Amino acid sequence: MRTGFFNEREQIMNENFICENINVNEEGHLTFAGLDTSDLAATFQTPVYLMDEERIRVNCRAYTEAFKEHFGGESRPLYASKANSFKYIYKIMKEEGMGIDVVSGGEILCAYKAGYDLSKAFFHSNNKTDADIAFAMDLGIGHFVVDGFEELYAIEEEAARRDMVQDILLRITPGIDPHTYVQVNTGTVDSKFGTAIETGQADEIIEAALGLPHIHLNGFHCHVGSQVFAEDVFERAAVVMVKYIAHINRKYGYLAPILNMGGGFGVRYVDTDPYLDVSKKIADLAEAIHATCEREGIPVPTIIMEPGRSIVADAGMTLYTVGSVKRIPYYKNYVSVDGGMSDNPRYALYGSKYTCYTANRMNEERDMNCNVVGRCCESGDIIQRDVQLPSDTQRGDIVAVCTTGAYNYSMASNYNKIPMPPIVMITDGQAKEVVRRQTFEDLISLDVD
Amino acid sequence: MRTGFFNEREQIMNENFICENINVNEEGHLTFAGLDTSDLAATFQTPVYLMDEERIRVNCRAYTEAFKEHFGGESRPLYASKANSFKYIYKIMKEEGMGIDVVSGGEILCAYKAGYDLSKAFFHSNNKTDADIAFAMDLGIGHFVVDGFEELYAIEEEAARRDMVQDILLRITPGIDPHTYVQVNTGTVDSKFGTAIETGQADEIIEAALGLPHIHLNGFHCHVGSQVFAEDVFERAAVVMVKYIAHINRKYGYLAPILNMGGGFGVRYVDTDPYLDVSKKIADLAEAIHATCEREGIPVPTIIMEPGRSIVADAGMTLYTVGSVKRIPYYKNYVSVDGGMSDNPRYALYGSKYTCYTANRMNEERDMNCNVVGRCCESGDIIQRDVQLPSDTQRGDIVAVCTTGAYNYSMASNYNKIPMPPIVMITDGQAKEVVRRQTFEDLISLDVD
Repeated sequence: MRTGFFNEREQIMNENFICENINVNEEGHLTFAGLDTSDLAATFQTPVYLMDEERIRVNCRAYTEAFKEHFGGESRPLYASKANSFKYIYKIMKEEGMGIDVVSGGEILCAYKAGYDLSKAFFHSNNKTDADIAFAMDLGIGHFVVDGFEELYAIEEEAARRDMVQDILLRITPGIDPHTYVQVNTGTVDSKFGTAIETGQADEIIEAALGLPHIHLNGFHCHVGSQVFAEDVFERAAVVMVKYIAHINRKYGYLAPILNMGGGFGVRYVDTDPYLDVSKKIADLAEAIHATCEREGIPVPTIIMEPGRSIVADAGMTLYTVGSVKRIPYYKNYVSVDGGMSDNPRYALYGSKYTCYTANRMNEERDMNCNVVGRCCESGDIIQRDVQLPSDTQRGDIVAVCTTGAYNYSMASNYNKIPMPPIVMITDGQAKEVVRRQTFEDLISLDVD
Repeated sequence: MRTGFFNEREQIMNENFICENINVNEEGHLTFAGLDTSDLAATFQTPVYLMDEERIRVNCRAYTEAFKEHFGGESRPLYASKANSFKYIYKIMKEEGMGIDVVSGGEILCAYKAGYDLSKAFFHSNNKTDADIAFAMDLGIGHFVVDGFEELYAIEEEAARRDMVQDILLRITPGIDPHTYVQVNTGTVDSKFGTAIETGQADEIIEAALGLPHIHLNGFHCHVGSQVFAEDVFERAAVVMVKYIAHINRKYGYLAPILNMGGGFGVRYVDTDPYLDVSKKIADLAEAIHATCEREGIPVPTIIMEPGRSIVADAGMTLYTVGSVKRIPYYKNYVSVDGGMSDNPRYALYGSKYTCYTANRMNEERDMNCNVVGRCCESGDIIQRDVQLPSDTQRGDIVAVCTTGAYNYSMASNYNKIPMPPIVMITDGQAKEVVRRQTFEDLISLDVD
């Protein structure tokens, strides 16, 4: 049933389920990565984040293989680790030959402690403190992706103090609207990120960077947004950026070696989301880049992309235990689970869609419309509205929420002093905790007596 | 300048600032609870949550004194600790004679470890697990506020196992719309919380509770919402609830000893928010309750309220350091600070309003319109839109965000692997960490090697 190779994906796609790594066994239980979710809930308790190691690796290979085929050379995908950052995942990235992008000292330390070679890391963030900059240099970060002038000068100063030259990319805003959630739309001119081409400020910061003795400008970065489905957003951004590289070459005689196109292809959360073929998308992007470079008369730069969500989202699933099913005649049914916006704030933040199942009643008709809600003392604590679950769903049942591998653990809080769930990694049919469950004692461990 | 007594508040209110515990000193620096915020930022680093102990105590006394005056007997306010839960605050609540409400095992353990007598605690939540119920009984919780049938039977079962009788309140939904954010509106019939009067289900659960041998029904709870400003919401809810107590007395011969009216009066985040006089609001509520009890011919029950936000919000302030000021001609200015939705997700979640200052430039004209944004890699990471700050605001300056004492620390996450700020309590002009800053090492302490 399961496969190790992405390009067989469409053939084996299970039409009945949102992800190909889920199925139903003889007992009518949902399986994930080949294991019975009811057994996993009993073994690890709930709530629990499950992750499918093979799926993560398959997703990585979709990118690494497409990059090899369509770009070659030093071009490579980076895992955008803000999607889900814990030590074990950096070990997988190391083995898969993935670069990484990191956005904070916390992510840098996590990758470092996992044995990841930070010379392959790109350090993002619209606001790096002096302490962040020093910490990243201490641990040998490969590239800073510089967001603006203050950071540029702060890096120059710290590199000068160390008598070294620091590799950087400059984050440029191409003025592309990807039509995604406004919260994750980052490529337009009016953004806290980067420096805009349209205003002429991008030219200025490039000129400044080229004049600094402890800075080595290694190219440009842009990022149009997250969860992007629109047909040609990356191609349009690539055309803008390649033309811009040519413009800068003409203006300053500087030919950017690297073009980092940022993230992030959309993933399927619900049936109505389209299926994106990563390999095909990268082929299309390569075609646009090659053609534009030829037109502009410049060599094709080293291309980088930064997938995060599309590496881990469908490799994750969250299991909860039902606490109550409240039926309010003429209004609504509420299925309350033992987690909520504390472990998955995405509905509360963005109204995000998810697919939910009653994992131990997979052979029953899904005949009850309900809201799946969390246990936090807040009406906005909703996992998903208008879900169809079997009407016999009751206290003690297991609810599975699919496609939670991205931006769930990484955005989790202790709201209502609820401990964070563990991450259980499933590898070759074996499940083990790679991040343990927080205890109540952990929650007060920072309190000074 | 500062005062220990709430009823002098209006007299001494500083017209220029959003909270009365802030001011400006001779150096043109913002002060909080009498201390220079620039000094505090230098001593404790940023981001940092400041809290003003005297303000917390003044806010508690507004409630305890009004309750004594207008209700007397056993009537009392509870601190809704989900607003901000850490050990030190339970010590204050103990000293101020406040009851508490708790919503999880985590909050229960925190209060217990602070030496708080849990017999005075009320345990809320729409979904208490069997483990939660056992844990709360182990530590001697006073009352469960029972949300529905499943929980009622689970408590009966656990109490039977222990051969004890457990005090409970039943959470009833009165069908009142408080016109607050939809996310914190909890009193309407269509809610995950409680059992509705309108559908007849409240009668059923009361009848069930009265028939259980290990349950002692000690009254009812309702909660109409959070951050409520509307004139008469609590009075309308009280009238509904008192009439309902009388109805249940006629129907089952059961006279509820306690009526818990829940939270939460609104607090002022920005100039345009009204100022609520808690003492006056409680007087109005008392009048409505007394009059309705008289009309219905029942004795006035013991009244409980559960303020959270109005106890701690204006006792809190967050300090950040500016990392960059990005000026995009014809678009917008962005002031990036070294925290964001990781320590304060309320703008991201609700579009909440806050008042911001450049703390070290208080004597300069606030002539720059800008968005104050965080350091997370997400466009939605906004602290506040359209803030007026001095145009010289620059990297290294301190930005203060006011009224952050509620639902900031309690909702904080490690998104982008950013450590949580410490809580610095200011007491009699002395500042000390009561919750220490998370370290990068803390962030990976749950990772299994």
